[in-house]
Amino acid sequence: MSLPPTNFKPPFNITRASHLALTSRDLAKARDFYTEVIGLKVSDETATTIHFRGVEERAHHSLILRRTKEEPVCERVGFRVFEEDDLEKAKAHFDAKGIEAKFVNVPFQGHTLHVADAFGIPLEFCARMKTLPRVHTQTHEHKGAAVLRLDHFQALVPDVGKAASFYTDLGFRVSDYYTAGAERLIGSFLYRKNNPHDLVFFERTGPRFHHAAYVAQDASRVIRALEIAGNLGFSGSIEHGPGHHGHGHSFYVYWRDPDGHRIELTLGAVQMMDIDEEPKRNEVGAGAVNLWGPPPPRSWFEEASLFAGAKVIEAPAGDPLTLEKYLFAKAPKTEPVKRRA
Amino acid sequence: MSLPPTNFKPPFNITRASHLALTSRDLAKARDFYTEVIGLKVSDETATTIHFRGVEERAHHSLILRRTKEEPVCERVGFRVFEEDDLEKAKAHFDAKGIEAKFVNVPFQGHTLHVADAFGIPLEFCARMKTLPRVHTQTHEHKGAAVLRLDHFQALVPDVGKAASFYTDLGFRVSDYYTAGAERLIGSFLYRKNNPHDLVFFERTGPRFHHAAYVAQDASRVIRALEIAGNLGFSGSIEHGPGHHGHGHSFYVYWRDPDGHRIELTLGAVQMMDIDEEPKRNEVGAGAVNLWGPPPPRSWFEEASLFAGAKVIEAPAGDPLTLEKYLFAKAPKTEPVKRRA
Amino acid sequence: MSLPPTNFKPPFNITRASHLALTSRDLAKARDFYTEVIGLKVSDETATTIHFRGVEERAHHSLILRRTKEEPVCERVGFRVFEEDDLEKAKAHFDAKGIEAKFVNVPFQGHTLHVADAFGIPLEFCARMKTLPRVHTQTHEHKGAAVLRLDHFQALVPDVGKAASFYTDLGFRVSDYYTAGAERLIGSFLYRKNNPHDLVFFERTGPRFHHAAYVAQDASRVIRALEIAGNLGFSGSIEHGPGHHGHGHSFYVYWRDPDGHRIELTLGAVQMMDIDEEPKRNEVGAGAVNLWGPPPPRSWFEEASLFAGAKVIEAPAGDPLTLEKYLFAKAPKTEPVKRRA
Amino acid sequence: MSLPPTNFKPPFNITRASHLALTSRDLAKARDFYTEVIGLKVSDETATTIHFRGVEERAHHSLILRRTKEEPVCERVGFRVFEEDDLEKAKAHFDAKGIEAKFVNVPFQGHTLHVADAFGIPLEFCARMKTLPRVHTQTHEHKGAAVLRLDHFQALVPDVGKAASFYTDLGFRVSDYYTAGAERLIGSFLYRKNNPHDLVFFERTGPRFHHAAYVAQDASRVIRALEIAGNLGFSGSIEHGPGHHGHGHSFYVYWRDPDGHRIELTLGAVQMMDIDEEPKRNEVGAGAVNLWGPPPPRSWFEEASLFAGAKVIEAPAGDPLTLEKYLFAKAPKTEPVKRRA
Repeated sequence: MSLPPTNFKPPFNITRASHLALTSRDLAKARDFYTEVIGLKVSDETATTIHFRGVEERAHHSLILRRTKEEPVCERVGFRVFEEDDLEKAKAHFDAKGIEAKFVNVPFQGHTLHVADAFGIPLEFCARMKTLPRVHTQTHEHKGAAVLRLDHFQALVPDVGKAASFYTDLGFRVSDYYTAGAERLIGSFLYRKNNPHDLVFFERTGPRFHHAAYVAQDASRVIRALEIAGNLGFSGSIEHGPGHHGHGHSFYVYWRDPDGHRIELTLGAVQMMDIDEEPKRNEVGAGAVNLWGPPPPRSWFEEASLFAGAKVIEAPAGDPLTLEKYLFAKAPKTEPVKRRA
Repeated sequence: MSLPPTNFKPPFNITRASHLALTSRDLAKARDFYTEVIGLKVSDETATTIHFRGVEERAHHSLILRRTKEEPVCERVGFRVFEEDDLEKAKAHFDAKGIEAKFVNVPFQGHTLHVADAFGIPLEFCARMKTLPRVHTQTHEHKGAAVLRLDHFQALVPDVGKAASFYTDLGFRVSDYYTAGAERLIGSFLYRKNNPHDLVFFERTGPRFHHAAYVAQDASRVIRALEIAGNLGFSGSIEHGPGHHGHGHSFYVYWRDPDGHRIELTLGAVQMMDIDEEPKRNEVGAGAVNLWGPPPPRSWFEEASLFAGAKVIEAPAGDPLTLEKYLFAKAPKTEPVKRRA
Repeated sequence: MSLPPTNFKPPFNITRASHLALTSRDLAKARDFYTEVIGLKVSDETATTIHFRGVEERAHHSLILRRTKEEPVCERVGFRVFEEDDLEKAKAHFDAKGIEAKFVNVPFQGHTLHVADAFGIPLEFCARMKTLPRVHTQTHEHKGAAVLRLDHFQALVPDVGKAASFYTDLGFRVSDYYTAGAERLIGSFLYRKNNPHDLVFFERTGPRFHHAAYVAQDASRVIRALEIAGNLGFSGSIEHGPGHHGHGHSFYVYWRDPDGHRIELTLGAVQMMDIDEEPKRNEVGAGAVNLWGPPPPRSWFEEASLFAGAKVIEAPAGDPLTLEKYLFAKAPKTEPVKRRA
Repeated sequence: MSLPPTNFKPPFNITRASHLALTSRDLAKARDFYTEVIGLKVSDETATTIHFRGVEERAHHSLILRRTKEEPVCERVGFRVFEEDDLEKAKAHFDAKGIEAKFVNVPFQGHTLHVADAFGIPLEFCARMKTLPRVHTQTHEHKGAAVLRLDHFQALVPDVGKAASFYTDLGFRVSDYYTAGAERLIGSFLYRKNNPHDLVFFERTGPRFHHAAYVAQDASRVIRALEIAGNLGFSGSIEHGPGHHGHGHSFYVYWRDPDGHRIELTLGAVQMMDIDEEPKRNEVGAGAVNLWGPPPPRSWFEEASLFAGAKVIEAPAGDPLTLEKYLFAKAPKTEPVKRRA
């Protein structure tokens, strides 16, 4: 199996997953979900666009919602580079590779470079963003999960090796990967900042946007969000969890926002940055992927948002252990009077 | 609908749900589950019987496990009466009613009276039990959820009104009840101590033992138990939850012990004791019974332990909203490429 | 030493500590403290009086603040009796004892009986109060510690045995008591409801009101209150804690409200109700009274609110281990360069 | 005031604070403290040396305790560089500067370079360390606070500007700094990894080792450690806290280990890594440094461990607001009967 190797002398310095833009058919409802349940702060709001940030984020936005009348999509995911100079290096790199890259003006951001990855996922890079005060200690104004910051994105692609190599060439390291049998790479966790994930790929028809993950301070904040969801009519938005991943090491709840986009609440992951960290192989089907909690429902495996402008390529759906199958296997087999032997 | 009225001048003074006895085919495995995951302390142990208590319980036992080679059952549930004198009054009361009641010797308990309720559920009453030190502040020795104390029992019976009236005659009050439509009583929460439940009945083929509930200090202890279950091979024992009930007001996780008996972990419920507390009606089907969390799986509705010696009477199964139905209704309908509209 | 014996056949049935009335020189500021930090809900408010309740309290009020221009005092503490009939029995009991007791009209309360205890602490008893919805699951509206319910009162009196015997005659049991040496009773925890304290006495000049305690759901809510206090200018109101009592078994923070009245935030205490619970003796000076956390500052020992109309009798101040003494004993003795050996 | 500027093209790539070595007069007692209360895991143990790591640490050790019969000291603090090659660059850099640097063999570590900083604080750099499995999800084996990982060191030095410039030359950035008045730099928070602190300096007689900080998962783990300390005889080891810093943004408890070395338990700090993060000035005396919690006791300001071999230079002690002064200012002024007006 060919796990793409990390280029430890990358052409420019990407520092972290930074922000994303989604479209919404009902901004007011989406705003409610993201402010009251997830606990994001609104940094800027117009009739057509809302910019949000987590409570510890000094950067102006990590989530942009834009009004649409079409099917909601993920418009773009954004990464930070360290310095302005890295943007020039990035432009030169993509030009040399024959990959179209262009500078654009984006509100509240410094110099911004647009490009698409190996499967057409729309990306952007910037070094600077308008800054606003951190409000993570303003507890009296916190709502919902009061999420601290954006952590990572997950996308579905028809070829994980090909998708990942675009990023490992840019210096991303692999923390965990999944294989089907010994040979076929079907999942890859890629990171630049010092934890196991800035960008995650799993094999499926794609490219499609699977989820963005925000970090909450602790489990009590996640439970608070669940309670508030129940009170405000969003309990049907809970798709999967609470539970605890085996690989990524953390507590999770997956939500579907009012437009169907998927958001994960997670807790701070392990620190991962030393040179002697090696990619860790996990074989699907070889055991539980969760420390606790049942498998995800079918919708978690099958549903995802399209990326704006990206052409979808079919891939085999595989045969994941869904919650539906899990329940079927565990369900009472005998007449109701008798309990499970 | 005839919700049975509480006798506020009861013939004797029952104070609380106190203990229960279950049988087990594999005491060693059950011991592991109850000590390492649930966090009970062993008060006494022989080759055939283990007595457990919660970490704040001064009473010698709230759970007794007895070895069996047969189908595991619930042998008996126990209540405390306030004084020895209440046992004499109880005996006189049952004699007068023509209900067989007899004094027996039970290890570690004072004078103990055996009787069966309206559906043959085996009960016992005692005023005293051997006492042992509370260990709730001995955090360094706590394991799993480190449950504090037993809270309540739930049983399935074919006629909730008839089952409940046996207890309301003895002074139990109703905190919540469930009806199917306006008329048919199908669930009843009964209490003597100052919270909403010592004994709960729901309508189904029975009598069968549905679950016993233990109180944990807070959600972090319940999460700890879930993590430890994952590590020790008990993650398959999680049947339902975490979630938050609407009526009973608390966070829950339902487990199946290695013999299939069901145990709930819950948090401290509301204080309920004033004369002006009125029974609260909830209509099934009129809305979610949960504040958050999906409906229970079929097994939760259909599976229960038999009570030793009690004759099971069939009742209609109803048509509860199971997790399986809920998932079916929410599942992706279209081809996988498209996400939910 | 004469620990007063409990009358297990009391003349009337007191069920629990229920409510208290304090006076305030600045209702607006006190309102801020109690709603934003402690997290009480306002049940009723006029220009001169505010009634508050905890989020799980169905009873209209557990705290009444009344505007004053005088030195703020504790006007009265209130207990619930079970039934209206208990009020008549109470009146008859006090009349027979030659203790003045009179029925009064109190807003939002049923029939209410006023009386003063052995040291002139103004009491009232009622069986009913207007009810309002519980809001403990309305998490999205919770503020501060979102306290659940009032738990107990503590008062300082010059003679603990005499003070306690008034209540043990009325059926209060002793959970814990403190002695100075083997003989002198200097503290007593009295209870009617099923946990260790409805009313606590310690020996000092008095009668004076030491504190009222509210129960929070868990430590994360108490920490939330501390953070919010810091943000809203109330961090100077934290007098003692967080810490963990040894005897009462729970996490605590003591606050001083804007008028100087003391409020404790605690967590749910152990269940205590069985006949075989025996009073537990603790000897002051024989060891730490805290599981963790330093001793209270001098103010905690010396400052307390007066009770309206009660004549204060001097008592020896004792020589408690204050935080000040504790720090003095631990402080660096040598020149600053050298650290503690 | 001259805040030393960061060299953004540093001579070699330091990635993070990594480990430290302390000496102990009683290894057995220190082992108890670090394993049972702090919750470190023992990676290796001999009669004279114990190596510990946090539960999420894959690196063999973050704390080394070495037996001594002398006054306990901090022998050395260690940083990671990214690659082996960075060690060669470091050696060349120090040689060029005329700073003595030598390669040494250190058990369980790769190539290791020893050097002393501007005040003689003994440092070491390495790129690799033996790795062991992360055990952060092995909750059933966790003890005490189950700390995740080492976060930062704090040292006292007579000249903060001079001390800090040694590190800013090596690429450290300043997150926060403290001034006395507008001009005099008296504290500096320096970081390489993506949070606000790898190394902190405050002005005092020094160099002396003030504390090392470990990160716990959440406040419930810190409270668990406090409870366990109470049970195991370490409650006197709690020096300061719990409280919440204003600048560093996190919950804290400061402990003194059995040899007097100071250890902080903290929670995960904010993510800080963007180029547009600017050093933030705080002026001492201009307001509370805590979000909540009283000031530290005198011992926290005055006591610190010596660094092995470093010559101590006196500095003015300043006049910090100690807990002792704070209590004196708040203490009851009038006779005890009257409470605070």
